[in-house]
Amino acid sequence: MQRVVTLKPFSLITPTASIAVDTHGGRAKCLQRLLRLGLPVPDTVALSFETVRRIAAGNLPDMQAVLNACGDRPLVSVRPSSMDPDWGGPRAVLNVGMTEERHAALSGSHGELAATTLYLRFIQSYAVHVARLDPDMFDLPEVPTRAEIERMLRTFREETDEDFPQDPAVQLGEVLRSIARAWEGTTSRLLRQAKGAPADAGLGLVVQEMALGLGPAESGSGVVQFVDGSTGERRVEGRYLRQGQGRDAVLGSPGAARIACDPNGQSLEDLCPDILRQLVEHGHTCRKSLREEMQIEFTIESSRLRILDAVRVARNSRAALRIAVSLANDGIVSPDEAVLRIDPRALTELLHPQVSVDAPRDVVARGIAASPGAATGRIVFSSTAAQASAAGGEACILVRRETAPEDIRGMHAAAGVLTERGGQTSHAAVIARGIGLPCIVGTSGIKIRQRQGSLVLEDGRRFSEGDLITLDGATGEVLAGAVDMVGPTLDDSFKTLLGWADEARDMGIRANADTPAEARVASRFEAQGIGLCRTEHMFYEDDRLTVMREMIFAKSSEDRQATLDQLLPMQRADFVELFEIMQGKPVCIRLFDPPLHEFLPSAREDQRALAESLDLPIAEVTSRVEQLSEFNPMLGMRGVRLGVTVPEIYDMQARAIFEATIAASHSGAPVVPEVMIPLVSARREVEIVKTRIDAVAAAVRVETGENLDYRLGVMVETPRACLRAHEIAAHSAFLSFGTNDLTQMTYGLSRDDAGRFMSDYVNQGVFLEDPFHILDVDGVGELLVLGATRGRQTSPGITLSVCGEHGGNVESIEFCRDAGFDYVSCSPFRVPVARLAAAHLALRRRKVT
Amino acid sequence: MQRVVTLKPFSLITPTASIAVDTHGGRAKCLQRLLRLGLPVPDTVALSFETVRRIAAGNLPDMQAVLNACGDRPLVSVRPSSMDPDWGGPRAVLNVGMTEERHAALSGSHGELAATTLYLRFIQSYAVHVARLDPDMFDLPEVPTRAEIERMLRTFREETDEDFPQDPAVQLGEVLRSIARAWEGTTSRLLRQAKGAPADAGLGLVVQEMALGLGPAESGSGVVQFVDGSTGERRVEGRYLRQGQGRDAVLGSPGAARIACDPNGQSLEDLCPDILRQLVEHGHTCRKSLREEMQIEFTIESSRLRILDAVRVARNSRAALRIAVSLANDGIVSPDEAVLRIDPRALTELLHPQVSVDAPRDVVARGIAASPGAATGRIVFSSTAAQASAAGGEACILVRRETAPEDIRGMHAAAGVLTERGGQTSHAAVIARGIGLPCIVGTSGIKIRQRQGSLVLEDGRRFSEGDLITLDGATGEVLAGAVDMVGPTLDDSFKTLLGWADEARDMGIRANADTPAEARVASRFEAQGIGLCRTEHMFYEDDRLTVMREMIFAKSSEDRQATLDQLLPMQRADFVELFEIMQGKPVCIRLFDPPLHEFLPSAREDQRALAESLDLPIAEVTSRVEQLSEFNPMLGMRGVRLGVTVPEIYDMQARAIFEATIAASHSGAPVVPEVMIPLVSARREVEIVKTRIDAVAAAVRVETGENLDYRLGVMVETPRACLRAHEIAAHSAFLSFGTNDLTQMTYGLSRDDAGRFMSDYVNQGVFLEDPFHILDVDGVGELLVLGATRGRQTSPGITLSVCGEHGGNVESIEFCRDAGFDYVSCSPFRVPVARLAAAHLALRRRKVT
Repeated sequence: MQRVVTLKPFSLITPTASIAVDTHGGRAKCLQRLLRLGLPVPDTVALSFETVRRIAAGNLPDMQAVLNACGDRPLVSVRPSSMDPDWGGPRAVLNVGMTEERHAALSGSHGELAATTLYLRFIQSYAVHVARLDPDMFDLPEVPTRAEIERMLRTFREETDEDFPQDPAVQLGEVLRSIARAWEGTTSRLLRQAKGAPADAGLGLVVQEMALGLGPAESGSGVVQFVDGSTGERRVEGRYLRQGQGRDAVLGSPGAARIACDPNGQSLEDLCPDILRQLVEHGHTCRKSLREEMQIEFTIESSRLRILDAVRVARNSRAALRIAVSLANDGIVSPDEAVLRIDPRALTELLHPQVSVDAPRDVVARGIAASPGAATGRIVFSSTAAQASAAGGEACILVRRETAPEDIRGMHAAAGVLTERGGQTSHAAVIARGIGLPCIVGTSGIKIRQRQGSLVLEDGRRFSEGDLITLDGATGEVLAGAVDMVGPTLDDSFKTLLGWADEARDMGIRANADTPAEARVASRFEAQGIGLCRTEHMFYEDDRLTVMREMIFAKSSEDRQATLDQLLPMQRADFVELFEIMQGKPVCIRLFDPPLHEFLPSAREDQRALAESLDLPIAEVTSRVEQLSEFNPMLGMRGVRLGVTVPEIYDMQARAIFEATIAASHSGAPVVPEVMIPLVSARREVEIVKTRIDAVAAAVRVETGENLDYRLGVMVETPRACLRAHEIAAHSAFLSFGTNDLTQMTYGLSRDDAGRFMSDYVNQGVFLEDPFHILDVDGVGELLVLGATRGRQTSPGITLSVCGEHGGNVESIEFCRDAGFDYVSCSPFRVPVARLAAAHLALRRRKVT
Repeated sequence: MQRVVTLKPFSLITPTASIAVDTHGGRAKCLQRLLRLGLPVPDTVALSFETVRRIAAGNLPDMQAVLNACGDRPLVSVRPSSMDPDWGGPRAVLNVGMTEERHAALSGSHGELAATTLYLRFIQSYAVHVARLDPDMFDLPEVPTRAEIERMLRTFREETDEDFPQDPAVQLGEVLRSIARAWEGTTSRLLRQAKGAPADAGLGLVVQEMALGLGPAESGSGVVQFVDGSTGERRVEGRYLRQGQGRDAVLGSPGAARIACDPNGQSLEDLCPDILRQLVEHGHTCRKSLREEMQIEFTIESSRLRILDAVRVARNSRAALRIAVSLANDGIVSPDEAVLRIDPRALTELLHPQVSVDAPRDVVARGIAASPGAATGRIVFSSTAAQASAAGGEACILVRRETAPEDIRGMHAAAGVLTERGGQTSHAAVIARGIGLPCIVGTSGIKIRQRQGSLVLEDGRRFSEGDLITLDGATGEVLAGAVDMVGPTLDDSFKTLLGWADEARDMGIRANADTPAEARVASRFEAQGIGLCRTEHMFYEDDRLTVMREMIFAKSSEDRQATLDQLLPMQRADFVELFEIMQGKPVCIRLFDPPLHEFLPSAREDQRALAESLDLPIAEVTSRVEQLSEFNPMLGMRGVRLGVTVPEIYDMQARAIFEATIAASHSGAPVVPEVMIPLVSARREVEIVKTRIDAVAAAVRVETGENLDYRLGVMVETPRACLRAHEIAAHSAFLSFGTNDLTQMTYGLSRDDAGRFMSDYVNQGVFLEDPFHILDVDGVGELLVLGATRGRQTSPGITLSVCGEHGGNVESIEFCRDAGFDYVSCSPFRVPVARLAAAHLALRRRKVT
């Protein structure tokens, strides 16, 4: 049976009154807490959501009773109190109760100037916000005079055909009704729903006796907080305005002074050091008891401090992190709670430089924000130019129609990447996120005139090679020139918090890392291993590319073998380095995956050069290129299909891995490499590759006389591999789900080509989100669960993981944890986010159970 | 509890003896049947599988008892009797029992020449097949003499160190043992397993008293049948050899005579008309009672007819069909049984011309047999040349590296297509099957030198444009020059049988037909409608292509609309024609599917021409082509993705369909068109397209003032559409599963690129079959079942079908029927096969239940 609670229409807030956030709103509750802490809060009455709803419907409670409850003071303020301050709401109305009679009385007690000022302010506020009259007619005068009062009252009468109400109870009633109705209005409702409020979100109101802040002796108002909202460092800051009311001090009032001591001697500390001492004490009390850094709104009325309100200090991610850690270090909150207080997504901006919030922005183009961070550099149009620029110590931005594997070295050399085409998971985007490079893709408004070395924008502006631009990878905006930046923050607080996160989480986090540089980042961010090491980039370096091409032109298995033998020592050295960096942590190496034609030049002149270097007729080169070219390379002769039909490549790679294992185990921690077969769609593919790789391992054991252990597994990235996971698992130590390719195949959607219509699709709600960005739980997700369940059926102890781009995504991590995956692997720069997100999940589930 | 049946080691075959095919083999059973029919079969003893197994193991039953059971005749023959005659087996051994003593006796009764001939034959047969001596040492002499007998007996003694056995019981024992062991040998076992025999297939043997066929009065042997094995027409044919034994008459003996009257007066009819009359009578008896056309093996011994054996007449598909229909028409078998007697696969060869079996074959290359039938024509290397050749009335073979949509008109003009690249489901293969054109793809050994207008083969031979070649689409062989052909057969029997099949089947069969020509074939083959009409080909015709290109270059929705308005009347005419041909049967029209770049020229010179015709700078053309080009067109901006982002195309098509519906309904049967949305992966795609198409229908209703009905459905070809079928079905009247694309996406395998390694994959057993050829029941099949089940969950009455290439495949039809699909749709030329296959399934299931 539902319990019906009948609330009083209004309650004076006392330490024991029945006030709750979900009946009276956050402000009312906070004021009660301040009262309980003994802070000098003026008498305040709270009106419940229910009461405000009735007021909107026309049922006013007894206004005089409300006024009486607010004590014997002549004036009151009305402030909104919703469940969540972020939902917005009507503005506060001050000085309710100002009438001719009160004006006369206040002129006596506080002086005519103060009384006139308050009266004018209230008339204006009431006329504009309650009577909804034209604000231009109620401008406040420079000098408050009786004549101005008369003018405003007359205007009010003319516009409304009524006299300005002179009964405080009537005034309060009209103010409350106006606010209550504004909250129910469509505009407000849509606005707050956009911020996550439920459709039936209620509004409470607080009616508080006014502490005037104007008048004789030291009077004024201000805000103070005890922490820096942008760094999280503890220090007193705020603004104080003599003869000010409400938030006047922070609303850009030029007369406002600092709180703490300043050179002009005009700060609050200078003016009333005792009051500052009281404030600091209140601040300490709040921090400890409310377990949060609060900003306090106060008024000094004739040298007497009154605390009107306190709200959570606004802060950026960096400050939030430091505040949480500091609260935990001081024993005020638990480390777990500190962890939960930081949104994992917010970590991203700490890991990269950002365009300064205050910097002027000359936006010249907009694209898809594909990799976070900001970078300034000179425009280059080719990877060669990027490398030249880097060699000359000049930061550059690589601008391309789209990038291809040949551009990797250029990308490594650049400070940022801008492409005309592509989506969230285009080559440029994926690689950029992998190496932590700011990147904007799908900038469809720009036109690259590579030959003329220029970049034409939608508005006709033209940039040339060498011109400075700035990429804001957080917003997807391209800015002209150099722009002020703020640097990344990896301070002790960061490390402490992530340490606590690691203690809380119950799911592994690895990094996708292909190069020693990436592996070092992974290690620095304390990934628990490498979940995906793509090996193909290792074949693009100049000396290796030549050998690769020789292999492609080999006429027999023996010739192929012979050319691959030249690559063996290089591959071995690659792996030794990775194993050493990862110090015995698991490294999962994906065997060669791309189609061979990616290694052949497509331009005629490059083909001629290749023909020369291989001493072949150009016709032979051209014909081989044509032979190998594919309609849909994504779905072609790559991955395990190469492994089965040209087995020499995998043989060489397996040997390199095993020899490196032995070498690295000599010089450091013992290594158990993980070897992963890509693009599997049938059990037999695994059997065939496994047989050969086991044979290579056996041969290496015999040749070296050393023992050698390894784990062979499968990258599950075709729908069929998910469906047949029970068969495939029988031969696999692990299944790692490649959600990029799996998403492509499940949707029948190439990530490289989807960029062109993805925004249309998301805008029209065809896809709620870009499925390459946010895991498609309904479709791809079902295949993941199906694959995981079937895999565990055959092989209960099998390791399950996700190694696609989604691995670093908060929603996807939750999905994977629920599906019982052992770990996720993501871009090295996403590792902290993933560690924190996993901790959140574990902590929240622990709370629930 | 298993019942143990103890069989006698041997049984004299009598009408009531316990003889069964699965214990004694087919020949023993057939002989019993002949006896029951009162045919003059010599005494015969049947040895069971079990007995023969024991003989192989060394346990001989009492041989004298066997001989005694065979009656009082001096000689016996031994013949194999396995469960299925196709499994092969040891050869027959005749004249067992010939000894010196029998020789003397026979010389008296049948003359010395006959006796000596029989003795020599037996010694030879025993020495070679039982004692396994060198056949060269036992050649039969031209003239049989006593000296030859002595020579052979001496050779036997020298080679075996034993005398030739003179005890008939010993001879028989050795013969049986030898045959029994041969059956158990590895070679025989592998051979018969390759033909489908189980590992433990048994062999029975029949020992029959010899009717000699040699000797005084009219003596000889022959075979006779009463139907033509290659046409199925009823007539007496066979061979008879005087003084011959066993199958001498048919083993190419030059003295053999015809059975029926011949000009030389030497036929059996001429020699012994009475015996022929008996044979004809026996033939009638057999046909009626054994319900089959039998070939009878007979011997005439001193003018007395003996029937040694009868076997099913060997026949080709055409004859098989006519025989089955004739048996049913004569009331001997039921129409259902006639239907079941014809293998659906066998129909294929009836629908196309074939290379004559006897024609000499100069095979110059081998590829994948992608579309059946044979064609001879002059080599052309381009679609233009093909059209020119066709215009000149000269049959041509279009030879291409691979075909593209631009080649469609060339393919229509050609008599056959040969491509270097591609697999069973490459563009060339699919289109060729669709239009019933012989086609060979993946002919990797050939090299096309398009510029020089020549074709170089693996062996270095060179063909030039204009040279004659022949494609054998049944074998995948390319033959030099023109070759003799036999024509297709669509006679009354064919129609009758398929009529019976239609009565039996419980599943619909439609055809995939894009053009009026294909629709006419579909109609001729009595498809129940068009299951898939691809509309894109309609945009490739010259005048339309230009308009298409203008549309692609349109700068606004209005411009696009205006160019599409030009296509509207043409599309409408297309549909009117299709509706008229199909006479009110359902026509399922797939909305525009291919990526737009397929309509733009890729060659520089063609781009220039386009720029001229559109009056645009070439740079704009080039840049648009580049902009639209895709990495993986298969997974790109096509299908419903175009429908959502460039909705004007679907609007135009919908209008054309609806206007055509009204026009065609005026002139003929009422039409309810089916409109199908391709490449769906999300519910919302369907909603968006449905809203627009419903609006077009409403507009057409208002404009014409006529009623108009239509069904909107979805082509399910992405794994995600299968997984979300319950959502998609809510907005669909039907779901048609496109198994081509679904297979591509489930495997992550492009059908256009798979050809390169598919044969490797099938050879290594990675895939048991090419999944584009035979439906992958395990993976793709699971998605089909899942999609069907979920679709029916939401929408129990929804129509389910398969419209991929698999639709015409016998195994796939079975799968679809089991999964509860309403119909399958396949190439028009596969429709008869599908109708028959569906009938088989229905009849078999009816038998089971």
